[in-house]
Amino acid sequence: MTRGRVRIRVRYPEVDGMGVVHHSHYPVWFEVGRTELMRELGEPYAALEAAGLFMPVVEMGARYRVPVLYDEEVDVETRIDSVGGATVRFSYRVSRADAGVLAAEGFTVHASVGRDGAPVRMPAPLREKLRAASRSEGSR
Amino acid sequence: MTRGRVRIRVRYPEVDGMGVVHHSHYPVWFEVGRTELMRELGEPYAALEAAGLFMPVVEMGARYRVPVLYDEEVDVETRIDSVGGATVRFSYRVSRADAGVLAAEGFTVHASVGRDGAPVRMPAPLREKLRAASRSEGSR
Amino acid sequence: MTRGRVRIRVRYPEVDGMGVVHHSHYPVWFEVGRTELMRELGEPYAALEAAGLFMPVVEMGARYRVPVLYDEEVDVETRIDSVGGATVRFSYRVSRADAGVLAAEGFTVHASVGRDGAPVRMPAPLREKLRAASRSEGSR
Amino acid sequence: MTRGRVRIRVRYPEVDGMGVVHHSHYPVWFEVGRTELMRELGEPYAALEAAGLFMPVVEMGARYRVPVLYDEEVDVETRIDSVGGATVRFSYRVSRADAGVLAAEGFTVHASVGRDGAPVRMPAPLREKLRAASRSEGSR
Repeated sequence: MTRGRVRIRVRYPEVDGMGVVHHSHYPVWFEVGRTELMRELGEPYAALEAAGLFMPVVEMGARYRVPVLYDEEVDVETRIDSVGGATVRFSYRVSRADAGVLAAEGFTVHASVGRDGAPVRMPAPLREKLRAASRSEGSR
Repeated sequence: MTRGRVRIRVRYPEVDGMGVVHHSHYPVWFEVGRTELMRELGEPYAALEAAGLFMPVVEMGARYRVPVLYDEEVDVETRIDSVGGATVRFSYRVSRADAGVLAAEGFTVHASVGRDGAPVRMPAPLREKLRAASRSEGSR
Repeated sequence: MTRGRVRIRVRYPEVDGMGVVHHSHYPVWFEVGRTELMRELGEPYAALEAAGLFMPVVEMGARYRVPVLYDEEVDVETRIDSVGGATVRFSYRVSRADAGVLAAEGFTVHASVGRDGAPVRMPAPLREKLRAASRSEGSR
Repeated sequence: MTRGRVRIRVRYPEVDGMGVVHHSHYPVWFEVGRTELMRELGEPYAALEAAGLFMPVVEMGARYRVPVLYDEEVDVETRIDSVGGATVRFSYRVSRADAGVLAAEGFTVHASVGRDGAPVRMPAPLREKLRAASRSEGSR
């Protein structure tokens, strides 16, 4: 099973008035994780867009466990949960890099669409790579 | 039933390379809606924080229906779904102001905590106002 | 002299760990002011882009005087300083709405470019409207 | 002369509707560069804040040369221009990592203040480290 892993250091403006990372920044980190996973699979997302395939988020969810502070580092681990003809579901775990404590977890569901926004099936080779990398292929 | 309603115009950097509002900005809009609802209830969130009560997001979810573009206006409608001793759940509907089309919907769950981050029960008057404003008090 | 004026309420994630609006958000507010000024002139920026004219920022500057806090309101006042064939300079004053205190001021310089990013002269009617609205046309 | 250098990969929401990084994100990258420079000097900014010293931006400027796209990498090079008793000026160069092309450059001026926002002189050891690292100490 493939699970992209990327380390991110918290930027100053990602922290809010409570002194902790604002919840709206985690979806951005999820996307960084997803981007790196796609690159590892040999299907960089920028190349998909250049070829006319877009994968907008149609659903998202997150649970926040432990706050993260300015200048701390987190590890984002991304997995592929399931792959349909024109849909993919990713899940994410964000852990504090020092102690390995789970800070947050979440998921996104994506549709594959063309330049005009209409749903299109993903090309078979892409679909196969995503499926091979999905959870169903292995266990932790 | 109280439902805060606030109009927001899309800012240029909220739109991404696909030309539509990036999904990570909707939680910020949800928060604008929540802030206005709390103000309408006579419990402005800034005053709660000044008094030592914080309400961080512990869970969040969103579904995206229709894209929203730069300079368009949206209406965010916020409701209170449920109120516990130290927890509140809000839900949100974001509609395009021109046509009333539902663009996205979502929810957030909040814990009430003190300055040290430890859970605290909300003061009874606050809890009562939130309950009185919640869905259970009325029908659509 | 035209000077767009728009009121903005500070959003929670615009505030950083110091408890004040992070300096990187002011350029976004400047852009909100600029957008409204262009709309007032009958040249909404979204329409210019739809017609193939883009005005990216090529230079920017800001001075920060007084902090602004969460949930405070600010007034952004935008002026046109000068207009060239393919360049415009705007300046901005951000004041706290309650007391009228100047919180920050800044400027942006824009090039006019086509879809391909190459410089193009602004259409004469646009240039004339901008000039008519510029400082040189009047005094305070 | 010390010049912090840090590589940053462009995130999806940093790109705007023109398909290029929005100008408001460069100040965030400048701050990432500044943070790393301070860490290299043995004066991590998070530790300064923990000790009660804050360094808010009081002036900022940027010039944009060449656009940067999604998923590209940039190198941010940070230098210290000048150091006063309660003020520091940094400058930044952002280059595209592939070709080394200068994409943007800028500067920030900071005041040193205490928890209450009142100006305070920087501790002598900090000031000395900053001066030793400043431009005046060396040549390229």
